[in-house]
Amino acid sequence: MEYQNQNHCPVARTLDIIGERWTLLILRDMFLFGPRKFQDLQDSLQGIAPNTLSTRIKTLEAKGIIERRLYTEHPPRAEYRLTRKGLALAPALKALKAWGDKYTAESG
Amino acid sequence: MEYQNQNHCPVARTLDIIGERWTLLILRDMFLFGPRKFQDLQDSLQGIAPNTLSTRIKTLEAKGIIERRLYTEHPPRAEYRLTRKGLALAPALKALKAWGDKYTAESG
Repeated sequence: MEYQNQNHCPVARTLDIIGERWTLLILRDMFLFGPRKFQDLQDSLQGIAPNTLSTRIKTLEAKGIIERRLYTEHPPRAEYRLTRKGLALAPALKALKAWGDKYTAESG
Repeated sequence: MEYQNQNHCPVARTLDIIGERWTLLILRDMFLFGPRKFQDLQDSLQGIAPNTLSTRIKTLEAKGIIERRLYTEHPPRAEYRLTRKGLALAPALKALKAWGDKYTAESG
């Protein structure tokens, strides 16, 4: 743990896992579009480096927030989807969206 | 804007402003404890570099999420507190807390 002193705080513990912009945008895509392939995420999150995306996905998998599923075996092709634990983040994503709708504006 | 292509998404726009761990922990402190002095935040967020804290505070002020108020004039002493726009982040913080309570555990 990077910030041991914050360990008693559930907000800090949550942010230790998902408190990074790309991570939250990966989750947003899965809430919006359902199961996603690596390439779907790569295409959607323009600007993310493939190794960053790969690291974020592995962390989310390791934390049990998303799971990897083979949807064809020949050739092997995988997609990622939210687990029950991941789906439980819906209220947080919805609250961030509601605030953005009300308090931020599209530019240009 | 760093990620222009995400500009149509209110979640992404929100994260452009507050989607950084320390920023969310600064806001958490103000929700928990009310108006905070720079030193209060510095003491609470152990591990944050003073210039990082200063930058995060300035961004939050510039975005209208917190405001600076002099609480004594001689010597000048300032504290920061949530604006209406900042207070409107309460549901997001509460959702992150609820998830942390349910799905993460204190270690040690």
